[in-house]
Amino acid sequence: MMASTTFLGLGAMGCALAMAALDAERPVVVWNRTSHRAQRLGEHGAAVAATVEQAVTGDGVIVACLFDHRSVHDVLDPVAARLSGRTLVNLTTTTPNQARELATWAATHGIDYLDGAIMAVPAMIGGPGSALLYSGSATAFEQHRSLLDGWGESSYFGTDAGLASLYDLAILAGMYTMFAGFTHGAAMVGSEGVSATEFATRAAPFLAAMTGSFADTAAIIDARNYAGDGQQSLEFTQGALDTIVQASIDQGMNAEVLRPVHDLVRRQIAAGHGAQGFDRIFEELRITR
Amino acid sequence: MMASTTFLGLGAMGCALAMAALDAERPVVVWNRTSHRAQRLGEHGAAVAATVEQAVTGDGVIVACLFDHRSVHDVLDPVAARLSGRTLVNLTTTTPNQARELATWAATHGIDYLDGAIMAVPAMIGGPGSALLYSGSATAFEQHRSLLDGWGESSYFGTDAGLASLYDLAILAGMYTMFAGFTHGAAMVGSEGVSATEFATRAAPFLAAMTGSFADTAAIIDARNYAGDGQQSLEFTQGALDTIVQASIDQGMNAEVLRPVHDLVRRQIAAGHGAQGFDRIFEELRITR
Ligand SMILES: NC(=O)c1ccc[n+]([C@@H]2O[C@H](COP(=O)([O-])OP(=O)(O)OC[C@H]3O[C@@H](n4cnc5c(N)ncnc54)[C@H](OP(=O)(O)O)[C@@H]3O)[C@@H](O)[C@H]2O)c1
Ligand SMILES: NC(=O)c1ccc[n+]([C@@H]2O[C@H](COP(=O)([O-])OP(=O)(O)OC[C@H]3O[C@@H](n4cnc5c(N)ncnc54)[C@H](OP(=O)(O)O)[C@@H]3O)[C@@H](O)[C@H]2O)c1
Repeated sequence: MMASTTFLGLGAMGCALAMAALDAERPVVVWNRTSHRAQRLGEHGAAVAATVEQAVTGDGVIVACLFDHRSVHDVLDPVAARLSGRTLVNLTTTTPNQARELATWAATHGIDYLDGAIMAVPAMIGGPGSALLYSGSATAFEQHRSLLDGWGESSYFGTDAGLASLYDLAILAGMYTMFAGFTHGAAMVGSEGVSATEFATRAAPFLAAMTGSFADTAAIIDARNYAGDGQQSLEFTQGALDTIVQASIDQGMNAEVLRPVHDLVRRQIAAGHGAQGFDRIFEELRITR
Repeated sequence: MMASTTFLGLGAMGCALAMAALDAERPVVVWNRTSHRAQRLGEHGAAVAATVEQAVTGDGVIVACLFDHRSVHDVLDPVAARLSGRTLVNLTTTTPNQARELATWAATHGIDYLDGAIMAVPAMIGGPGSALLYSGSATAFEQHRSLLDGWGESSYFGTDAGLASLYDLAILAGMYTMFAGFTHGAAMVGSEGVSATEFATRAAPFLAAMTGSFADTAAIIDARNYAGDGQQSLEFTQGALDTIVQASIDQGMNAEVLRPVHDLVRRQIAAGHGAQGFDRIFEELRITR
């Protein structure tokens, strides 16, 4: 008989992950700190464990989807001694360093550790567009591919357990920044009564098309080739940003969304690179100031 | 015979605009402050004027594509008195208020004024993907549609001459912000040796797909319906941003790109809206602080 998969944490995401495993007709054991959240999964055929100790009896893979790094230790520290030889897939969002700390902690207890980052909302799990990033134990990734692939497209980034989180957070950094930029633009046109909906019909295809330039930007960054042909110069960009900021202020707006990109451009110009390409702002991000 | 179209300013963009008119077999008169830039257009059949006075003789439409607002006055103030009854299409980048100032100045001199903003680089003019935004005189927009349509897709936003510029700058605000976010993400994964090119293969389709949510964000903003179902809360977003910033700092990076969105979220939470949706950051942008 197939070993049971244990799910620790049945919030919105933990429930979706466990439900996908049940849909794939896997034997499933579930546990949640507040027990009522396990009820619906029990009705769908999951074995509901009353305690973490009970949930981790057996020898199947353990999937954690808790609140944060701290809660993973809260739940697993008391049972760590009996987990030697087991596999832990941790899908709780953490920083890369927290994932690395958990990998070290797991190694100390003889646990095979795979860290994961979920690029989806619960409703997307198991459906199109769901992507999960993994790093840490290559063995764990290979052995449990069919479980993982049931949640979404699985990608493995290497043995450094922090990489999946780093990759995920890097993409989210781009996403939150993009939404702030869109919202700033909506507020600009909104100041003259244009609806955000009307603005979105034009901004969405334009920004989507501009993501097509990420590959060019990336090639420039990878080659540190900021003086090559066809690049928009830092000086030109500064002029454009001056105009956008002035227009925003003229319209009675708060222009702080543009401040960092403006500052990065200004500092690179002050450092003597004004004739080089805008992508040089990368050089400002690599070191803490 | 068709009246000649006059082009004032033959930088990279002015040249592309004049060349498109020549390609459409229109009679063209060109002028540039430094005369050598007119040479290539002369070889393609444009009449090269030695002075602005000479360039604006005749009764065709006048197209200005100069450096900035100041340079438009530098070039046109000396000849303004003789331009009564003429049409001026100004494609020089300005702030909305500068466009409005030029519209007022034009009205004073009996000039029909159409302001334009170009969403394209010179190489795209007349080809697919080129879009130009117009506002100001509706008559000028209607009468010269075939000239304008030769440069790209033409959209008219209304009689307020500042609207085309405002719309253009709003989209550019989104674009520069998005590129700063992409560059931040590239620096995050780059801190562990992942190339920006590899990052772009994942970030580009993800961010392109996320522009599909702009319509939902816009509907929330237009309805000021930040408490509706299915929205990611400000509290949740703050946690995500805390994690991204911490991860960036842990990797030895400068995290300033994320500062405004983080600050906007924090201020909305401090104002008591933590359980409401992230799109509420719009409320922070509308007024100067
Ligand atoms: N939801 C998403 O869209 C999404 C997307 C990607 C990643 N994630 C990540 O997935 C993880 C879970 O998210 P979620 O949406 O399921 O969150 P959630 O609905 O808030 O659930 C949080 C879960 O963590 C448990 N928990 C919190 N602190 C605990 C502690 N000290 N000890 C034991 N259990 C504790 C909660 O138990 P109780 O029920 O007893 O409170 C609950 O099961 C998070 O790290 C989140 O960042 C979520
Ligand atoms: N290039 C783009 O991708 C792009 C995209 C959208 C919008 N635009 C806008 O289009 C306009 C022109 O851009 P561009 O790329 O053609 O710039 P450019 O190549 O730098 O050309 C600038 C033009 O302005 C002239 N000029 C500057 N100051 C002047 C003054 N005081 N009196 C008379 N002429 C003056 C220059 O004449 P000299 O040759 O004598 O210096 C030149 O013809 C700008 O407002 C720009 O923002 C450009």
